[in-house]
Amino acid sequence: MALVTVITGSVSDRTVVDPALDILRNHKVSYELVVASAHRDPERLIQIIKESEEKGTRVFIAAAGMAAHLAGAVAAHTVRPVIGLPVGSGPLKGQDSLLSTVMMPSGMPVATVAIDGGKNAAWLALQILALLPDGAKLQKELEDERERIRETIQDAEKQWLKELEDKNSVTA
Amino acid sequence: MALVTVITGSVSDRTVVDPALDILRNHKVSYELVVASAHRDPERLIQIIKESEEKGTRVFIAAAGMAAHLAGAVAAHTVRPVIGLPVGSGPLKGQDSLLSTVMMPSGMPVATVAIDGGKNAAWLALQILALLPDGAKLQKELEDERERIRETIQDAEKQWLKELEDKNSVTA
Amino acid sequence: MALVTVITGSVSDRTVVDPALDILRNHKVSYELVVASAHRDPERLIQIIKESEEKGTRVFIAAAGMAAHLAGAVAAHTVRPVIGLPVGSGPLKGQDSLLSTVMMPSGMPVATVAIDGGKNAAWLALQILALLPDGAKLQKELEDERERIRETIQDAEKQWLKELEDKNSVTA
Amino acid sequence: MALVTVITGSVSDRTVVDPALDILRNHKVSYELVVASAHRDPERLIQIIKESEEKGTRVFIAAAGMAAHLAGAVAAHTVRPVIGLPVGSGPLKGQDSLLSTVMMPSGMPVATVAIDGGKNAAWLALQILALLPDGAKLQKELEDERERIRETIQDAEKQWLKELEDKNSVTA
Amino acid sequence: MALVTVITGSVSDRTVVDPALDILRNHKVSYELVVASAHRDPERLIQIIKESEEKGTRVFIAAAGMAAHLAGAVAAHTVRPVIGLPVGSGPLKGQDSLLSTVMMPSGMPVATVAIDGGKNAAWLALQILALLPDGAKLQKELEDERERIRETIQDAEKQWLKELEDKNSVTA
Amino acid sequence: MALVTVITGSVSDRTVVDPALDILRNHKVSYELVVASAHRDPERLIQIIKESEEKGTRVFIAAAGMAAHLAGAVAAHTVRPVIGLPVGSGPLKGQDSLLSTVMMPSGMPVATVAIDGGKNAAWLALQILALLPDGAKLQKELEDERERIRETIQDAEKQWLKELEDKNSVTA
Amino acid sequence: MALVTVITGSVSDRTVVDPALDILRNHKVSYELVVASAHRDPERLIQIIKESEEKGTRVFIAAAGMAAHLAGAVAAHTVRPVIGLPVGSGPLKGQDSLLSTVMMPSGMPVATVAIDGGKNAAWLALQILALLPDGAKLQKELEDERERIRETIQDAEKQWLKELEDKNSVTA
Amino acid sequence: MALVTVITGSVSDRTVVDPALDILRNHKVSYELVVASAHRDPERLIQIIKESEEKGTRVFIAAAGMAAHLAGAVAAHTVRPVIGLPVGSGPLKGQDSLLSTVMMPSGMPVATVAIDGGKNAAWLALQILALLPDGAKLQKELEDERERIRETIQDAEKQWLKELEDKNSVTA
Repeated sequence: MALVTVITGSVSDRTVVDPALDILRNHKVSYELVVASAHRDPERLIQIIKESEEKGTRVFIAAAGMAAHLAGAVAAHTVRPVIGLPVGSGPLKGQDSLLSTVMMPSGMPVATVAIDGGKNAAWLALQILALLPDGAKLQKELEDERERIRETIQDAEKQWLKELEDKNSVTA
Repeated sequence: MALVTVITGSVSDRTVVDPALDILRNHKVSYELVVASAHRDPERLIQIIKESEEKGTRVFIAAAGMAAHLAGAVAAHTVRPVIGLPVGSGPLKGQDSLLSTVMMPSGMPVATVAIDGGKNAAWLALQILALLPDGAKLQKELEDERERIRETIQDAEKQWLKELEDKNSVTA
Repeated sequence: MALVTVITGSVSDRTVVDPALDILRNHKVSYELVVASAHRDPERLIQIIKESEEKGTRVFIAAAGMAAHLAGAVAAHTVRPVIGLPVGSGPLKGQDSLLSTVMMPSGMPVATVAIDGGKNAAWLALQILALLPDGAKLQKELEDERERIRETIQDAEKQWLKELEDKNSVTA
Repeated sequence: MALVTVITGSVSDRTVVDPALDILRNHKVSYELVVASAHRDPERLIQIIKESEEKGTRVFIAAAGMAAHLAGAVAAHTVRPVIGLPVGSGPLKGQDSLLSTVMMPSGMPVATVAIDGGKNAAWLALQILALLPDGAKLQKELEDERERIRETIQDAEKQWLKELEDKNSVTA
Repeated sequence: MALVTVITGSVSDRTVVDPALDILRNHKVSYELVVASAHRDPERLIQIIKESEEKGTRVFIAAAGMAAHLAGAVAAHTVRPVIGLPVGSGPLKGQDSLLSTVMMPSGMPVATVAIDGGKNAAWLALQILALLPDGAKLQKELEDERERIRETIQDAEKQWLKELEDKNSVTA
Repeated sequence: MALVTVITGSVSDRTVVDPALDILRNHKVSYELVVASAHRDPERLIQIIKESEEKGTRVFIAAAGMAAHLAGAVAAHTVRPVIGLPVGSGPLKGQDSLLSTVMMPSGMPVATVAIDGGKNAAWLALQILALLPDGAKLQKELEDERERIRETIQDAEKQWLKELEDKNSVTA
Repeated sequence: MALVTVITGSVSDRTVVDPALDILRNHKVSYELVVASAHRDPERLIQIIKESEEKGTRVFIAAAGMAAHLAGAVAAHTVRPVIGLPVGSGPLKGQDSLLSTVMMPSGMPVATVAIDGGKNAAWLALQILALLPDGAKLQKELEDERERIRETIQDAEKQWLKELEDKNSVTA
Repeated sequence: MALVTVITGSVSDRTVVDPALDILRNHKVSYELVVASAHRDPERLIQIIKESEEKGTRVFIAAAGMAAHLAGAVAAHTVRPVIGLPVGSGPLKGQDSLLSTVMMPSGMPVATVAIDGGKNAAWLALQILALLPDGAKLQKELEDERERIRETIQDAEKQWLKELEDKNSVTA
């Protein structure tokens, strides 16, 4: 059983999707990966959504570029939360996929993250799962991650400051 | 039997779609009008496409605004030509629906016309139908329409020039 | 105790936020409404987020226009899901608030909905809450709503077709 | 005799146009290729359109970049369907050619496909030709192509899943 | 004989074009006004350009909206300077007509002025005509106009300052 | 003697500039108002900048729309801080004036505020003046203003909550 | 004495400006090249414009990137035609310089060509100079150039067609 | 004690920020460098702002990319001038960070400079500091810098002209 179903419209989106899968895996969240296009195989997409729901998926992540209909198509077949991940492929670099993903009509929301924001799609999924009965551990991990980010930034700052000092900075 | 199936995502697109219907009607082209959303009733949409094809539809026209997935969703279920009509509704005035309609992936073309270009969606459908065995009459009508447009422009020009003369123009 | 904390940067966003509150109220979901700006009263904002969490809020909705930092500021102080609602106020009609809300850095996702998409912010919150132990009733309501939308569309279609018939349509 | 006339404004658009020609050739559809610019040789362009029509062309494909007037110029001289292919050349990467191609005035539609969407220009031409008396074979090929795309996607999915398994995925 | 040929694609552009005509008339510059569309009557357009040149036109002004091909089409048939006037009609408010007018390929320049900049189209024509043998008077008028603009601004400033004083300004 | 020189390119920008003047006046900051265009009266503009500096101006505010060169032109003639205020006039609603004001080359900064952000231009000027020897009072007023904004927001919140209660809210 | 004064804001624009100089030189048109920034050396710019005019310059070409004020600044100091050449430097790739150059206020036109359209800036200058008493030779050269472009395109077409034939095209 | 506090959201912005630090250092202006994100460590950010103010910082510089909230977040906690430096990182190349930085609501101005305009952020800080009691030396240096820029441009011009002469220019 998978808690998250990750659907991507094309294998060419892989560099954006793989970091999301890494985060899910690192946090021991079961997921199912499907390559299915809203346009190229709509029947299979519908079937996958239905089966995923039956098998217990809580959250969908849908990644697509250009006229990115995938997240909206998933949202049309489920009332589970759907996270839309616009991919910055194609000549317009995601200006098209962002608008195609986020500007959904009333009643069919897509929880859209940044263009090429694969990691944030996963973090958002974890935030939702952390609300569930067994989510305390996940919530703790999310808070730890915040702490880890803080430390990483401060370490980077120290390194930069050190290099500046070597340049004989006037900072008091 | 209808030769053109006109699908629109929302009755609020009616001011854009009605001029298309008027042109089809004026040229005695049978059409079927359906209000069906790619997001709000995907199963019915698929069924309509299949039935339309079986009943002999040659061309689809799909009108939608914002994250306009309708034309792409129709294109995913048929290999008949699909004319995409982006509607300029919503805060972005069709910048979203244009990109959502036209930037389709390889293998699933949508023949996109201008934002709010309801008339051109109909003219394009007529141009395609005019290629069919009984299309000679339609072709003649399309050529007559061009002539009519030319005359309308020249009449408007005459009227404008006359008004300018009354302003005592220096034109020789 | 409120399950949803709705924060809005300005009372001028009210026409966008009120429809969200209506949906929450209609579905008997307790909410707390706060007017607090990321810029104008950051300390109070932080305090509200902390208190809301302690009181049991599951989901935040944050609505703001122009350089819309509110959703991101909320996301910085909680690991609960934050729904970002870009408001289309100001001269750029939401092109600024959409980008300011959705283009978040890794680790701080904001679940962004459409510009002026107040209703979808609420629907997304309900979809998340429906995953919780007592969510079965809410899930049923979400599915019923989908059915209701379908019927509304078909009713609108019937009305339109009837008017077209009166215009003596050629549709067979 | 050619069924499709492919006109391109510049040899520099060749990487976008060649994939279209490949598809036409693979499906045994006769075509004529012309390099003719709406701006640089308008008289020759008009002559080519007239001759192509007389020789039996059913569909035009017109590819151009920047202030892409080619498709519109072709549409001005024929009532046959004109497929507009905006090329993403120049500093604006096709934002200019898309708008210059698609935003046509009433009465002169251009069936616009995606920026750099050479393949879709060809697929759309095939979809139109498949409506003609001898189109059954083409229609079958279009349906087979859809099937082929589906299989390609599923093969890619299998390959990706296999690589993920090797990374010891938690997917059940 | 007209020195300036003003071509406009549609009578709906009249509010943008009339101020240009007023300036030409006020400066006693002969002009010819033509309503002719690059798309809707291309043959007539070509004929008009040729005749205008023979009759002695020095400069063309071409006004059009949306996929504004008119100025480029004129430029394709003459080596006289062509002033392009993008009209802000349609849902994209001139973002389309500006790019369609200005992004011309090498060898076919269009001297583009601001969206809806009818007056500047006329001023630019006068600046070019002022270079001709009899242009001294026109050059003087252009310099006088600059002086007039300066005075208008200073008068407006005085009025504004006076009103501010009445509000009891703190300005020293 | 004026501490702030407010230059505006056109009296049509007045609705954007007047709120800035009101703030300066309310805080007893002396200002000089000039209507002078970078394009229409460049010599006078240069003279004003020089004289203002000699008379002791500390900060310039420059407001202009469309191809807004005014702030940059001021910045070219002084090393005093120049606040650029892009006005949202014209068909592009300030997308042009924002870029024309902010994208300055190295060495000539313009401190740009929001499109139509007249008030913020004044607040920024006050923030700079508050750094000067006699600035303590101004600094206090800026902090008080922050407090006042906070209270205004909370009052608005109370009013809104009261109205919601009357609608029988479910909020606990 | 130079007939054309070419002013460029920065030596970094050289790759865009050199092709313009080549065209002027090839057509034996005398020009003067100046590197002068509207922002970085405004006094020198004004002096150059005045001296150029006195020495007989007929046309100015002004090239600049980002907040491109150069062409407008030149236009403010002369009533000779000013050709604006937006350079696609900087992060926005000329979207900023195009708007900063073309959206000029009434009375100060800039004849804007395409982003990075150095060649067209020169061609437009030649078109204006060809109107002058000695312009017959230049006019002939401009017409010859058109012929040369036509031949180049047809040669390229032949080459392409030959390569396609070798691929065993189905074209009849 | 530092006069300028430079805050940057991420070490990946370093190539944009280092040139600012170089200018401050070259002009003997003490600065403090902090890496702190509005989203990733908001509590630390607030603490840093308070401490910096107490230690005497006059001006803040805040650099961030994408949904760039950093400058606004700093502005929310101080009434000192805040210079916003939008970084052109991410798929939208700074179109997002520019709007997120500059479109601030009334009362919270951010003095925004160009995308990736690190040097101008420093120059603007120096311009503000030059107004302070000990600023005469700094003001002199700013004026000298202008002179230096002028000379650099004229040297570059000479070099270019020399190279053109070697190409046998027709310039008189």
